[in-house]
Amino acid sequence: MISLKTVFATLMLCLTSSVALAQDKPNIVLVFMDNFGWGEPGFNGGGIIRGAATPRLDQIAAEGLRLTNFNVEVQCTPSRSALMTGRYAIRSGNGTVPLGEGVYGLVQWEVTMAEMLSDVGYATGMFGKWHLGRTKGRFPTDQGFDEWYGIPNSTDESTYSSLPGFAESGVAETYVMEGRKGSAPRKVRPYRIEYRPLIDRDLTDRAISFMKRQASSDKPFFVYLPYTATHFPTMPHPEFEGKSGNGLWGDLLMQIDSYVGELLDTVDDLGIAKETIFIFTADNGPESLSSGETSLTVETAIHGSAGPWRSTLFSGYEGALRVPFAVRWPGKIKAGRESDEIVHAMDLFPTLARIAGGKVPDDRVIDGIEMSEFLLGKRSKSGREGFVVYMGNDVFGIKWRNWKLHFKEQKGWNGVLREYTMPRIYNLMNDPRENDNVLFPHTWLPKAALGLLTEHVASLRKYPPITAGALDPYKPPKYP
Amino acid sequence: MISLKTVFATLMLCLTSSVALAQDKPNIVLVFMDNFGWGEPGFNGGGIIRGAATPRLDQIAAEGLRLTNFNVEVQCTPSRSALMTGRYAIRSGNGTVPLGEGVYGLVQWEVTMAEMLSDVGYATGMFGKWHLGRTKGRFPTDQGFDEWYGIPNSTDESTYSSLPGFAESGVAETYVMEGRKGSAPRKVRPYRIEYRPLIDRDLTDRAISFMKRQASSDKPFFVYLPYTATHFPTMPHPEFEGKSGNGLWGDLLMQIDSYVGELLDTVDDLGIAKETIFIFTADNGPESLSSGETSLTVETAIHGSAGPWRSTLFSGYEGALRVPFAVRWPGKIKAGRESDEIVHAMDLFPTLARIAGGKVPDDRVIDGIEMSEFLLGKRSKSGREGFVVYMGNDVFGIKWRNWKLHFKEQKGWNGVLREYTMPRIYNLMNDPRENDNVLFPHTWLPKAALGLLTEHVASLRKYPPITAGALDPYKPPKYP
Repeated sequence: MISLKTVFATLMLCLTSSVALAQDKPNIVLVFMDNFGWGEPGFNGGGIIRGAATPRLDQIAAEGLRLTNFNVEVQCTPSRSALMTGRYAIRSGNGTVPLGEGVYGLVQWEVTMAEMLSDVGYATGMFGKWHLGRTKGRFPTDQGFDEWYGIPNSTDESTYSSLPGFAESGVAETYVMEGRKGSAPRKVRPYRIEYRPLIDRDLTDRAISFMKRQASSDKPFFVYLPYTATHFPTMPHPEFEGKSGNGLWGDLLMQIDSYVGELLDTVDDLGIAKETIFIFTADNGPESLSSGETSLTVETAIHGSAGPWRSTLFSGYEGALRVPFAVRWPGKIKAGRESDEIVHAMDLFPTLARIAGGKVPDDRVIDGIEMSEFLLGKRSKSGREGFVVYMGNDVFGIKWRNWKLHFKEQKGWNGVLREYTMPRIYNLMNDPRENDNVLFPHTWLPKAALGLLTEHVASLRKYPPITAGALDPYKPPKYP
Repeated sequence: MISLKTVFATLMLCLTSSVALAQDKPNIVLVFMDNFGWGEPGFNGGGIIRGAATPRLDQIAAEGLRLTNFNVEVQCTPSRSALMTGRYAIRSGNGTVPLGEGVYGLVQWEVTMAEMLSDVGYATGMFGKWHLGRTKGRFPTDQGFDEWYGIPNSTDESTYSSLPGFAESGVAETYVMEGRKGSAPRKVRPYRIEYRPLIDRDLTDRAISFMKRQASSDKPFFVYLPYTATHFPTMPHPEFEGKSGNGLWGDLLMQIDSYVGELLDTVDDLGIAKETIFIFTADNGPESLSSGETSLTVETAIHGSAGPWRSTLFSGYEGALRVPFAVRWPGKIKAGRESDEIVHAMDLFPTLARIAGGKVPDDRVIDGIEMSEFLLGKRSKSGREGFVVYMGNDVFGIKWRNWKLHFKEQKGWNGVLREYTMPRIYNLMNDPRENDNVLFPHTWLPKAALGLLTEHVASLRKYPPITAGALDPYKPPKYP
């Protein structure tokens, strides 16, 4: 027989542990830059040599953890796909950025970081660039975000209406959109060149407003803030134009730093710093558009800096893969820590799931590695030995420990991809520019590293990838 | 009539002001690395990505001033000549490193930093590599240093006796030497491969011992510590070999950091931190010896890192010119300051002269700019707009503000130097890898920058350079 007292005690226990759990769920702010090289922020040796000091970005690193070996996929869409799903983009049919008008992006069957967090009680807001679908069922608010303001695609589209030939092309103009979970997003305004310098201001304001609203609620929040900076064209907000004295790039760097500072200040002023994981990173390495390659003005012919690493976005070299990463979580992550352990954007899904008490899907392959203990400083090793490096849907090579295996060669961001007759090997610590093939005498290395690729390929055979542009976003892939 | 009281009072005044003056002269420790790229130390975004954290180097920057645009000449001998004299190396006949056995280096007529400081009461000790003369009258102890322990030339010579063909060549072996002002230095031991990993330990010990001896004396001291690291071959001390877990380069980085830490600790433990200017910098950009270019083992086929900058030593690109620089002077230089103002190694002579109350020679051209107020934070501008970039005795180009004019092209550290038919222009902040010629539309730039070269050439015509390898080191050059 159960007494009323027992029932009451049990009920109290349930309530208590449920409250304790809610308190345990930290807010998450994820600032995700666009085409922002490893060498840009002061905390990676950039800052003033790039045109502007970045004291607020540096503050995140100083007050938290800086990862010098944080890796992504090498193009916008694949990188965002991997971030959102914890899976190699190839699995989700998102191996490349969409260049045509076709259907692309995440199918509904995928479980995004926003869905995972939403399922355990998070309020989820996204402010910025999606690039994972612009058609019904594939918008952010179809994929776990309670609200969204931003652009479905990418920022080059902001130039379209000002370019000759576009008006008569029949290609649809892109819109800035706004949406709420449960209904179709609405078009706010065309995304044109006039709005390009202004959009990140609005994204910041909306993120701040979201945080303020949520701070007084019971729910923890997840803010995903994929800025449109620093994708071309390089156009700082009028408030920042001319302010660095070092050209548009310096102005933009100053702007980014200032906006991130506002976000940090908001978190601090709301008194939620200790309950908020604040992450600053980027989708892939920098652009390099020389004046010979673009019809934009010379001022916008920028050469984003990957720092010491080779090449730019859209390549398999380190400059594309390694991006800035700093995370702050006062009281949980030791201030001023730095690590060169290999971490991949895919790892954020299972890691944040563990921290937030979220569920990692067990009915599909998750490539991300759960590394909360590493993040919190309880372990010095990340647990990741390496990963497969894709260039689009091609396997470019493998990164394994401090080594890189190249199967292919690529010159320039849009250069020809050529296959070597034998893999080449590079020591990343010795040779950050991947110049000097040391296969001889390191012929032991493929033996050690290739297992990673073999396993990956076997897994792809067992669980075939979703077809790129599968027409029905609601249909799960068929696995044998 | 003068009373005894007046005489006494005057005498006291003189004594007081002399004492005050002596106290005003800070000690100077100048750590000067060999072929050590901008991207190596943690304070420039290197450290762990290069194989080892550099907490002690970073400490200098954190407690003092980091210059991100500190420039040198692009080869060992020219850079050391400019550092010691405050003059372009070309003026002193030291435009290139000596490859033959001939006479080279500084003539006696030159006034070195050590002589300048010695003349105003400094005890001057040098521990390390000279590379400014190996013949009578040209050793460090002929050029202002009270004492010297080190090597007259460079570290590649440590490999000679272990290489086939050398024994029968008739080329003289190099010795580690020791000297005192006023007598010829003596040979201590041959500089062979066995001693190569050990020498920097001895240099550190001797520098520490010198500082300890001098700290209890009335005289201020000048320690010039041109380490043999990181010139090839890359051979860390046995105490550090294998210690980083990241190969020889990581071990060596760890060693450098540890040795510099010992020097800092010595200064701190002696209680003279506030009276000591502690500088860490290097002679020129990094080596890049690929396995295809050297017969050394693969482990020593290193690619030093210039960080984001183009190319290596022995070129006119930023990777050769820009080196790490951090200076600490507690109480005088604000902690954590950083500046991207252009500073050149030549500027240290007149700047340190001003700080130490030394005399800058007025009977010759001094190209260095006195910038003590900049160093001490009283001005934000260094006062240097640019300088002429030499590759050997050739003018490679001009650096002016954040721009570079290339007159020549050079591929690889020992590549062919080819002249352009028209100068090319690069925006260093926008384009750190000097990839994208923006002469059009920036045709205003040569008009602004070329004055610097015109003036320099006029000055060379008026005051012809000393002939390289002038046979009599004691003979002043003949000026018209």
